[in-house]
Amino acid sequence: MYKVGIDLGGTNTAGGIIDEKNEIIERENLLTRHGCDPELIAADLARMVFRLAAKVNVSMSAFDKIGIGIPGSVEGGIVKDANNIGFYDVPFAGMVAARTGLPVSLINDSNAAARGEYVAGSGKGARSFFMLTLGTGVGGAYIYKGDIVEGCNMAAGEVGHMVIRVDGRHCSCGRRGCLEAYCSGTALATRAREAAITNQYSLLNKLSENNPSAIDGKLFYKALMAGDKTSSQVFDEYMKDLTAGVVNIINLLQPDVLAIGGGMSGVGSTLLNELIKRVQPEVFSLHSDTQTSIRIASLGNEAGIIGAV
Amino acid sequence: MYKVGIDLGGTNTAGGIIDEKNEIIERENLLTRHGCDPELIAADLARMVFRLAAKVNVSMSAFDKIGIGIPGSVEGGIVKDANNIGFYDVPFAGMVAARTGLPVSLINDSNAAARGEYVAGSGKGARSFFMLTLGTGVGGAYIYKGDIVEGCNMAAGEVGHMVIRVDGRHCSCGRRGCLEAYCSGTALATRAREAAITNQYSLLNKLSENNPSAIDGKLFYKALMAGDKTSSQVFDEYMKDLTAGVVNIINLLQPDVLAIGGGMSGVGSTLLNELIKRVQPEVFSLHSDTQTSIRIASLGNEAGIIGAV
Repeated sequence: MYKVGIDLGGTNTAGGIIDEKNEIIERENLLTRHGCDPELIAADLARMVFRLAAKVNVSMSAFDKIGIGIPGSVEGGIVKDANNIGFYDVPFAGMVAARTGLPVSLINDSNAAARGEYVAGSGKGARSFFMLTLGTGVGGAYIYKGDIVEGCNMAAGEVGHMVIRVDGRHCSCGRRGCLEAYCSGTALATRAREAAITNQYSLLNKLSENNPSAIDGKLFYKALMAGDKTSSQVFDEYMKDLTAGVVNIINLLQPDVLAIGGGMSGVGSTLLNELIKRVQPEVFSLHSDTQTSIRIASLGNEAGIIGAV
Repeated sequence: MYKVGIDLGGTNTAGGIIDEKNEIIERENLLTRHGCDPELIAADLARMVFRLAAKVNVSMSAFDKIGIGIPGSVEGGIVKDANNIGFYDVPFAGMVAARTGLPVSLINDSNAAARGEYVAGSGKGARSFFMLTLGTGVGGAYIYKGDIVEGCNMAAGEVGHMVIRVDGRHCSCGRRGCLEAYCSGTALATRAREAAITNQYSLLNKLSENNPSAIDGKLFYKALMAGDKTSSQVFDEYMKDLTAGVVNIINLLQPDVLAIGGGMSGVGSTLLNELIKRVQPEVFSLHSDTQTSIRIASLGNEAGIIGAV
């Protein structure tokens, strides 16, 4: 039997047929429609499933379920709150099930990505797994013995809102000093802009043509790789805060594997090597023979499709 | 058959004989010696076990095991790292076994207390439970569906070494800014002493007869209850840091119940009411219908003795 996994994103939707080895054997992408009736989006997804079946030349009876990752909170088959796609209290699983005749389950998209990495990617074989997502924001998901730990209200894993500096930088959540305010991709760009303003000879200014607001993650990384001193200082401070956050997670949970996903993980070995070097002497368990393995998430966008089922 | 449970603390050690109904039928307390050879502490514990046996008029053969709660990380019979008692890679189970002729198992003291509370105290009936211990140090244990989450190296739960202020106060673990450096009983006394020195008219100085080093938790609490302004400020700052730590745990795990244990929990409602008031508006899930229930641990010292076996 096959399964269908769909990652319903705010901008793009990716779907795939997953075989019994948790591998994607066929996939398709489409733009997510905006501001329309959820029934129309359900119809889009149903058509995608029929096309996928046709591509691999099987009937719908070859699929035993559809899993959909949702960018928001879900409870059972209901999307409670997903502001990026404008769904509030939408019985979306039933809408897709009615059009496909298949059982449909919903899952939060970050949890889906973590589950995908756990079953088929960087967390494969781990007993406990923490996925730290460094993107526009900072997110997380903790998997223990195969369960996503969702807590009493399905809201666990909000590691972006772990305070690492009481009274520190303002965070988008309204509090101060959260990890997200220091270690998201957005926060790194902000830190680079601030540094560019106070260090006029930095390569950051040359590359941005003296327009600090044009400094984004890519430009910063270019300056860093070119050996710019200001960028190195920004990276050093960023890594200090990221290390504090990662060490906090490890000291609390000591997962077998901690994987870094999200846009920031695109810088791969630069981030990873520095992080491992800094975390090692800081963990409370530094004298232990066994340590959490820190890795870059390996599946990219595929994690969300695989994890949705 | 009886068991012997021992809670080896940084300041006090409590031991008890436990019957088959998990009730303590005889108990004894002693001061934990400091800065001495672990063999001497093993001898202290062995003598305690012999005295306990004599008190209930049984021979050592009436005991089938000794369980010892350790304020640090343990692996099998080895204490890996317990900085409050100065044990690093100490085969402590063997030392006590050699002196008593009984099998000895070690468990992290916070895990022992958490297990006791989860089975018979404040966490009874919870699906997920976090025990935060505020004593000489700060410890923690997370129980998920009946399992103590010990992580890849049995060292999970070290919430005392969660950094809440990067570059902050020095911690006994060698790092800076840990929750323990702000929120242990020891840290509270340190903060009160510092405040007494800079506020000469504080009641803290009157009560300590102008000897700040005589200020301990009890004296501080007395001054606080008498309305001393300096003590109120110290308590306010303490609660701010404790709130950050508790909110960090909740945002990450959203346990059904979070219980406060350890010496600081002795101040009960004063601490609890203030903590609940401060945590509520700070958690990321503040709009959720379901929230973590924050409680004072209900078994006191007995949790650590019962949970050790």
